Amino acid sequence: MRIILVGFGVVGQNLVKLLLSRADDIYARYGMKPRIVATLDSRGAVICPSGLNLHRLLEVKRLYGTVAAYDRYEGQGEYTDSKQTMEVSNNRIEEIVRSVDAEVLVEATPTNLNDGEPGLSNVITAIKHGKNIITVNKGPLALAMPSLLELAEYNGVILRFSGTVGGGTPILEFAKHCLKGDRILSFKGILNGTTNYILSMMEEKGLTFDEALNDARIKGYAEADPSLDIDGLDAAAKLAIMANWIMDLKVTIRDVRCKGIRDVNLNDILEAKRHGKVIKLIASCDESRSLSVEPMLIDKGEPLCVNGTLNAVTFKSEYSGELTIIGKGAGGMETASAILRDLIEVREAMSIV
Amino acid sequence: MRIILVGFGVVGQNLVKLLLSRADDIYARYGMKPRIVATLDSRGAVICPSGLNLHRLLEVKRLYGTVAAYDRYEGQGEYTDSKQTMEVSNNRIEEIVRSVDAEVLVEATPTNLNDGEPGLSNVITAIKHGKNIITVNKGPLALAMPSLLELAEYNGVILRFSGTVGGGTPILEFAKHCLKGDRILSFKGILNGTTNYILSMMEEKGLTFDEALNDARIKGYAEADPSLDIDGLDAAAKLAIMANWIMDLKVTIRDVRCKGIRDVNLNDILEAKRHGKVIKLIASCDESRSLSVEPMLIDKGEPLCVNGTLNAVTFKSEYSGELTIIGKGAGGMETASAILRDLIEVREAMSIV
Repeated sequence: MRIILVGFGVVGQNLVKLLLSRADDIYARYGMKPRIVATLDSRGAVICPSGLNLHRLLEVKRLYGTVAAYDRYEGQGEYTDSKQTMEVSNNRIEEIVRSVDAEVLVEATPTNLNDGEPGLSNVITAIKHGKNIITVNKGPLALAMPSLLELAEYNGVILRFSGTVGGGTPILEFAKHCLKGDRILSFKGILNGTTNYILSMMEEKGLTFDEALNDARIKGYAEADPSLDIDGLDAAAKLAIMANWIMDLKVTIRDVRCKGIRDVNLNDILEAKRHGKVIKLIASCDESRSLSVEPMLIDKGEPLCVNGTLNAVTFKSEYSGELTIIGKGAGGMETASAILRDLIEVREAMSIV
Repeated sequence: MRIILVGFGVVGQNLVKLLLSRADDIYARYGMKPRIVATLDSRGAVICPSGLNLHRLLEVKRLYGTVAAYDRYEGQGEYTDSKQTMEVSNNRIEEIVRSVDAEVLVEATPTNLNDGEPGLSNVITAIKHGKNIITVNKGPLALAMPSLLELAEYNGVILRFSGTVGGGTPILEFAKHCLKGDRILSFKGILNGTTNYILSMMEEKGLTFDEALNDARIKGYAEADPSLDIDGLDAAAKLAIMANWIMDLKVTIRDVRCKGIRDVNLNDILEAKRHGKVIKLIASCDESRSLSVEPMLIDKGEPLCVNGTLNAVTFKSEYSGELTIIGKGAGGMETASAILRDLIEVREAMSIV
């Protein structure tokens, strides 16, 4: 299986590490030999139709900061494959997608919830050229999931996105594959680890919002600009993806009523605590299909009530009652494992056709 | 899809209700028309090759206590199908399995962890006559799962058992289908709702073991003879099933080191509580594949730490970290929904062959 990997940040690099460490096992269990035939980062690209050397790719990125230096690297070992490196430009992706034979394009550029770029164009280009897509980038889906699913179906390609919700925690798979014959009536969840960490610290340690945010920054849980997290947009993007995939709704992030945690103050949290409750940023799809992200009071005893950076979702099903799944919601290796899961699914779907 | 339903207690009756209420949807979504062509309870059997009338079946059971009275019932509506009722005898199942055309036998007789009967014989008979099996009876699997899986494979039939662990909560499916490409290194869980209720009541309300057990009896969570639950055998049976299915071990309940909760006293629980911990009956398969059921101290903040009759399992995976799934562990309709899930899986597997 030949892969074009677009984006070589933390997730992309972890995917390469995962493929290196699991190669034998993936072949033995799934009959699959994934090869990366091209990869791009923000500064350049490298193409090798017979498959790039993955050790070298990691080493080059570490030493030079871009995969475009692949040629320059004088490491140990022989690299005699025909290959080509190039600087990146706006329509480079289209050129690569058109000219390089591959079964799957993995889109791992950073999420942009304003216009979805460059991910949105990458996804559309790949679909139009008949490539299956695995994206861990929430932007394109949050803004245009209904039309992207339709476009993929029309072009006969598979579009998968496990890693966009829950990191490595298989929330989307659970809802889609584990409840056959039952019906999910509604769901609610904690979909953003950063805000959950901040709220947990306020409750457990009595920190103010600003102190807790600062603590999250020091620990590496919050970005320099944490507004996507604390204004609820990251959770809203994930909620829109879940609503499309699990509930068959045709919605985008604009259909989510969204309120972040900036206005949650320590007094509210301590007052809630006295009544055995906690304030959590809850993304929910209720029985009338209304979508919202907002701070809500939750009973401390509920399975949904997880602390720290954990994510959790409770599904209300018609016959099996309430089912909750909890796991880490982020992490480079965790998200890479979601890509591997999708690769196996794409492979299985391809072999059925 | 023709079904022989063996056992017509709470689960069997709920399965019939579920098939009645979901018939149209099951056909629309899965192209499946389940028909019950024979059913047996402890007092008799009724056979109808074109499919029994499900409303009549429920009504007859309610009025006369046995499906064998199907002929006698003078309800509304016309029942002109050719059918046959009979008293039950020891080798009646063999006779029915041999003479009635069906794709699946659903085994829903009560669990017996001593010799597995009558479930064990029913399962073996069905496999030998080429019928696919869905069992919600833990007995046969707890005592002989490795050889039953082998026998099923040898005879080319499918053996499924979702409802044996977690009631309607898809614990087995989650571990088997949602973590492709990853590896489960170990797991631990609360697999018995009755003991979890008792321990929760002791901790929350300060009841003694006997008081809490009595409360569980009143609420209908504990049997008249609750020894299977409180001695840990029910949890051990489920653990053995999980170890076979998820970890590919060849084990039975006899390979589980098992200690129940009879010796847990209120002082231990209150002492643990002072240190932010709780005592739970934990079934675990550790990284060295050692299996045990025993009361253990758990941090109150762990996702695994659920109260009341809930079940919970935490899987430790190599790449996605710790994943927890929580849900109701029992219930007639919940377990029936697990049978429906299995029916859909059997149907899908049959159509691939």
